[in-house]
Amino acid sequence: MKTSLTFLLITAMVLINIPKAQGQKDIKVLTAKESDPRVMQWMQGNPPPKDKTLRVDDGSFFIFPGLRWSVSHMREFMPTVGVSKGLKNAAPLAYAHLKSEIDQIRFMPLGKNQWISFEESLDEVYADGVIILHHGKIVYEHYRGSLTEEGQHTAMSVTKSVTGTLGAILVAEGLIDPKKKVTDYVPELKNSAFGDATVRQVMDMTTAVQFSEDYADPKAEIWAYSAAGNPMVKPANPNDPNSYYAYLKTVKKKGKHGDAFGYKTINSDALGWIIAKVTGMSVAEVLSERIWKKLGMEQDAYYTVDAIGTPFAGGGLSLGLRDMARFGQLILANGYANGEQIIPLAAMEDLKKGGDKTVFKKAGYSLLQGWSYHNMWWMTNNAHGAFSARGVHGQTIYIDPKADMVIVRFASNPVASNSANDPYSLPAYEAIATYLIESKR
Amino acid sequence: MKTSLTFLLITAMVLINIPKAQGQKDIKVLTAKESDPRVMQWMQGNPPPKDKTLRVDDGSFFIFPGLRWSVSHMREFMPTVGVSKGLKNAAPLAYAHLKSEIDQIRFMPLGKNQWISFEESLDEVYADGVIILHHGKIVYEHYRGSLTEEGQHTAMSVTKSVTGTLGAILVAEGLIDPKKKVTDYVPELKNSAFGDATVRQVMDMTTAVQFSEDYADPKAEIWAYSAAGNPMVKPANPNDPNSYYAYLKTVKKKGKHGDAFGYKTINSDALGWIIAKVTGMSVAEVLSERIWKKLGMEQDAYYTVDAIGTPFAGGGLSLGLRDMARFGQLILANGYANGEQIIPLAAMEDLKKGGDKTVFKKAGYSLLQGWSYHNMWWMTNNAHGAFSARGVHGQTIYIDPKADMVIVRFASNPVASNSANDPYSLPAYEAIATYLIESKR
Repeated sequence: MKTSLTFLLITAMVLINIPKAQGQKDIKVLTAKESDPRVMQWMQGNPPPKDKTLRVDDGSFFIFPGLRWSVSHMREFMPTVGVSKGLKNAAPLAYAHLKSEIDQIRFMPLGKNQWISFEESLDEVYADGVIILHHGKIVYEHYRGSLTEEGQHTAMSVTKSVTGTLGAILVAEGLIDPKKKVTDYVPELKNSAFGDATVRQVMDMTTAVQFSEDYADPKAEIWAYSAAGNPMVKPANPNDPNSYYAYLKTVKKKGKHGDAFGYKTINSDALGWIIAKVTGMSVAEVLSERIWKKLGMEQDAYYTVDAIGTPFAGGGLSLGLRDMARFGQLILANGYANGEQIIPLAAMEDLKKGGDKTVFKKAGYSLLQGWSYHNMWWMTNNAHGAFSARGVHGQTIYIDPKADMVIVRFASNPVASNSANDPYSLPAYEAIATYLIESKR
Repeated sequence: MKTSLTFLLITAMVLINIPKAQGQKDIKVLTAKESDPRVMQWMQGNPPPKDKTLRVDDGSFFIFPGLRWSVSHMREFMPTVGVSKGLKNAAPLAYAHLKSEIDQIRFMPLGKNQWISFEESLDEVYADGVIILHHGKIVYEHYRGSLTEEGQHTAMSVTKSVTGTLGAILVAEGLIDPKKKVTDYVPELKNSAFGDATVRQVMDMTTAVQFSEDYADPKAEIWAYSAAGNPMVKPANPNDPNSYYAYLKTVKKKGKHGDAFGYKTINSDALGWIIAKVTGMSVAEVLSERIWKKLGMEQDAYYTVDAIGTPFAGGGLSLGLRDMARFGQLILANGYANGEQIIPLAAMEDLKKGGDKTVFKKAGYSLLQGWSYHNMWWMTNNAHGAFSARGVHGQTIYIDPKADMVIVRFASNPVASNSANDPYSLPAYEAIATYLIESKR
């Protein structure tokens, strides 16, 4: 499986210029319990001791185990823009507690030969918070480490699925025609790889772009992209792009658009740019107006922003765990909530129909056989029609329509790639879905 | 009157190293209507045109007229920490509309020979939002420019009065003894000017410290303090302090503590440090736990933070206008709200008794004759016993106990010093108080 490391870790590494290996030195050395931010006492004390202080300027904020604290405190390190929920009261979620039952559900992790309980698996994935909804009610809710019910946690690339959903809404509304060229909406991208791509290719990440997200390669484009989006430091070279948009204009083509799925964050930000162009609002404002204010959210969310205030549509969203559950439930419920069709049905139908399995296969994800990618959602294409939003270090929205179930999880696994979480996550989700169906709850 | 310019303007100037005069070049050139951020179209477009883009790294975000946009968007430029209101629903404020009557109230600005209506005066002070509470109900509410009812605006040095109020609460609770030495709580300050000061001297700003807030002086300590608190840039000299706490340790003594009032922001951050020490929490957490979660606030607030996450207790708070009104009303109502004594009565009694007029007089504020300063509140000592929280560029909480009135105002006057706003503010507040009393509303 390809490595798709968070931009933020990369940002940290760029900032301090540490060798790649050093950032991973402690990986898997500390267990979830040992690396619990409360145990580690990050940022405790006034001032905290030097070795307990997490900073942007030395990169410590995003190196494990410090990142376990930082993922719940991103706004304290970076400029951000709010996603207002408006001033209405929240729409409460109902409860139907099944926590002790679900904690005891056992499954066999992929590639292992030993059963494990769901409760035990939470340590393996370094979970910070988990909510499971069934028939729209919370059957499981659990917070760990630095995360509380009134806290906000970074969603990492789950952000992409939010961006893709906004795109699908605007397609259904006729503001975006996915068959049109990207440049019909963003003329500034004319001379980039996106110049001859369609919006659909961007939304399904089948553009052919010269962009490596392999952080083990110091020349990978991800480094330059991260630097471009980082408002905390000026570019090393004054001619380097210093915003997401400025970088996107420089992306080179590599191959033929539409041939293969290629998970590249720049597609999400290109879509974010298209959304901004057709609405006249940033993705943060669109998310607020179209979803946050309508869905009865409990908390404002926020995006990290670049030096010109552009929200990071590819990975910058932080939000409350219950609010992420509300968003997942909205998607499960075909866009309907609180007596209102919040997302047009046409958008939901398109979203759930999934993408092309053949082009997905070419990307070579060994653990994700038969999956596809569409509107920036990962479709399992399994018997339950499950699909998900996935972010590095273990962020998840997993939607199982057949089980009428949504699982949302925040985590801070020392390994960025989902290949570390999937063996303990994918079979767990299927086991819980099966339990809920078979127990006829 | 002394010039007390915002740290943020200074931060901007430090960052871009512009001559002092340049930052003021446009002062008073554009009227309130001409400099309305909606008219100026700051940050509109994707990306916004270069001359409409406000940035930290070139300092543009805090130079008038751009600052008129930025004051409502501080979190988009700086790392911040949230002040959670908790997840409870807001406590609604009742309305008893008198807007058209109050808009027509006329008064003579200080030093002028011409009557002006309250409505007209809002342009003179570059108001962004005004709420007037009478008998606890909103009689006047108005938003302009970039501020909306769901937005947040920087409170600048109104933050100090919030910090002072938290200090007074902890004094009433016995956690802080104001007669004790600062070093009894913060041993790290032993070798600084604060080393032999009492907590009371810090809370009333009668410490004798070598600290100029005169931004016209390039050697003024305010520059170094601002640089120390700025997480967006590393210090020019690696030995320079790079946090608020680190700077406070370096403050030199000048004169004798207790002799004279001297408005120095470092006192507020020293008090913030004391508060953090005795509670084990940051001022942001203390404000959340003691006030925000209890008062039925509508929105979370936030503080800007330095490179080690310390909230700027001297000026970093941003909050909603109605929430600032709720805070003012809590102070007017002797700490009682929503059926609860949120602030101990002893704290309120001490807060309202005011400070020493003799030491205040020595500071030489020509417009503030007979005033005093206590617990980081400005006491007018007028016939109504009015007192206020004051921040640069026109931020205000004005409390008139006799009229049972609270006025809160956010503004973005191109002139930082309140000397620019006071002639149009102080007589207006007295006229409105008189109107409310005489009309027997």
